[in-house]
Amino acid sequence: MDTLNVELGTRSYPILIGAGLLGVADSFAALRAGHLLIVSNTTVAPLYMRPLRTALGSRRVLEVILPDGEEHKTLANAARVLDVLIANRFARDCAVLALGGGVVGDLAGFVAACYQRGVAFVQVPTTLLAQVDSSVGGKTAVNHPGGKNLIGAFHQPHLVVSDTATLTTLPARELRAGLAEVIKYGLICDPELFAWLEGNMPALLARDPAALAHVIRRSCQIKSAIVARDEREEGERALLNLGHTFGHAAESATAYREWLHGEAVGAGLVMAAAMSRECGLLDPAQAERVRRLVELTGLPTRVQSVAPPVLLEHMRIDKKVLEGRLRLVLLKAIGAAFVTSEYPGDALTRTLAQHAGAVA
Amino acid sequence: MDTLNVELGTRSYPILIGAGLLGVADSFAALRAGHLLIVSNTTVAPLYMRPLRTALGSRRVLEVILPDGEEHKTLANAARVLDVLIANRFARDCAVLALGGGVVGDLAGFVAACYQRGVAFVQVPTTLLAQVDSSVGGKTAVNHPGGKNLIGAFHQPHLVVSDTATLTTLPARELRAGLAEVIKYGLICDPELFAWLEGNMPALLARDPAALAHVIRRSCQIKSAIVARDEREEGERALLNLGHTFGHAAESATAYREWLHGEAVGAGLVMAAAMSRECGLLDPAQAERVRRLVELTGLPTRVQSVAPPVLLEHMRIDKKVLEGRLRLVLLKAIGAAFVTSEYPGDALTRTLAQHAGAVA
Repeated sequence: MDTLNVELGTRSYPILIGAGLLGVADSFAALRAGHLLIVSNTTVAPLYMRPLRTALGSRRVLEVILPDGEEHKTLANAARVLDVLIANRFARDCAVLALGGGVVGDLAGFVAACYQRGVAFVQVPTTLLAQVDSSVGGKTAVNHPGGKNLIGAFHQPHLVVSDTATLTTLPARELRAGLAEVIKYGLICDPELFAWLEGNMPALLARDPAALAHVIRRSCQIKSAIVARDEREEGERALLNLGHTFGHAAESATAYREWLHGEAVGAGLVMAAAMSRECGLLDPAQAERVRRLVELTGLPTRVQSVAPPVLLEHMRIDKKVLEGRLRLVLLKAIGAAFVTSEYPGDALTRTLAQHAGAVA
Repeated sequence: MDTLNVELGTRSYPILIGAGLLGVADSFAALRAGHLLIVSNTTVAPLYMRPLRTALGSRRVLEVILPDGEEHKTLANAARVLDVLIANRFARDCAVLALGGGVVGDLAGFVAACYQRGVAFVQVPTTLLAQVDSSVGGKTAVNHPGGKNLIGAFHQPHLVVSDTATLTTLPARELRAGLAEVIKYGLICDPELFAWLEGNMPALLARDPAALAHVIRRSCQIKSAIVARDEREEGERALLNLGHTFGHAAESATAYREWLHGEAVGAGLVMAAAMSRECGLLDPAQAERVRRLVELTGLPTRVQSVAPPVLLEHMRIDKKVLEGRLRLVLLKAIGAAFVTSEYPGDALTRTLAQHAGAVA
């Protein structure tokens, strides 16, 4: 078992990484709450609820099982979970535990943030995306028909238990979606990780345990270091949105139904690289390496089903719009991302024309 | 104009206190947001929306006017306000402004806490209760049928503008409700304030401007000092719940329809003093002074319409229940409150028997 610590003063917490951890009592030894509510979904609960409950021992445990899918990450479902906590008179010293991927984690975390103005929260991520990204850093949220993650809170977990054995049951499509975020970390600040991915993508797609453990550990290291320096996204943390302004717009324009989040991020990374090239910032050969790695991962590299002006419209409602000017994360090189709202408008138009809508 | 600073490091903020402040541009000079959403209610908006909008000058201003009353402090109404922010594409640099009493402030503050994981929030309290209590300290929440303030967040305002001139239009019943919280501050830690209230209650009820300004300033000083030492209620801040465990239960048992919050707190203070006496902690003469001051203020001193066992049941779902044991704020003396979960159960039974239900 690997332990990484996210350093946030009094709100510091450990990330445990290893095979089989969710079924082991020791993984939850630090958890003092005697009353727990597990939020999961109809896909994950049948696979992992039983071993998790065994590991939790004699604690009082309730469950809320939501339907599976991003379209269920709603305020109405968060309210449903709150109703269960209240109906069962859970007190401030209870804990909410998320068993599942990013959707379950974001929603359960938002509930934990709001219930009685904040109760303890534990993440047990069962997808690669949640293990490398959404379970770390304290962002919680639900979606709104007007945009993704528009309603949420910063609420750090008390504990993250990343059981790598859960990846054996993960659908291939979700594995690839998680790898999009790993590619992102390489692009932001770790050219070695990016190059390693170029060489080892086949091993990752074949679910080689050592390869997966390597990228989970490295991703959590990078993300937790950035979060420790800028918990509430007042600066550097915005780098983690690389590819996400494009990606969120694609998800929103397709009503969250066509793509997994990580798939949208895959296309978003290609578009961020292309935009960087169009701005004269990124060497075209490096932009092409980005496109090729995303393609090799089996992720979309463009947004076929959305016309460029529609995608632009959806980008504008993105949370990163500041004073009406869209801020973007762009690349100077692979491993060197930066945030800017200074770019030629026609570079954005060209990027969208190349990467959105039916191929001319 | 008086300025008090609430010292919370990077989240410090000023409370401006004075007559006519809400109609003066200078009061909002520190506010950088160009896009504002004002949340108010059908009672307050007709009185003060126009001067406030004039003071806000050329900023883009939207309004959401809610029905007046505690029963409208719901998650559904918070969602309605969020819908307006999203439909109008307000960005992270917007601000939510609460114009009204505690209900409007709590709900608008919760919206500001959740929208895009937190946007700027300004309180313009127009009731005495909001000016001395709810606008200061960053507690935001909505009610749930299962209990008061069960869904919420800690989210500090950026600015509080307390216009004492608004108290001239405040119904007498609401003035008295606000005075309950002022009595509370005296009971917690300021015997001089308590004695001053015993001598000056007629002047306060006659809305003497100097008397009101004195209690607002002193109340904000006491509350902001406690909040500065314990922002998230991990210790000392719990003292501010004096009278509230009893009071919240009374409100909840009457479905928030019979009493104003401050009225319930009035009865709650009498019950907390009586309970302290029943526990042998408080001199009976001091308990009687508490009852008499609450009575002199024109506030209820018992919970006529709720039977003792029903009130006890509603106390048990209170947020302050820890590990199943109800924590109470009790008094060793006027001006010396403390938190405890150690008390004889029969003292609570006797207190409720004396103060709840029809008089035998």
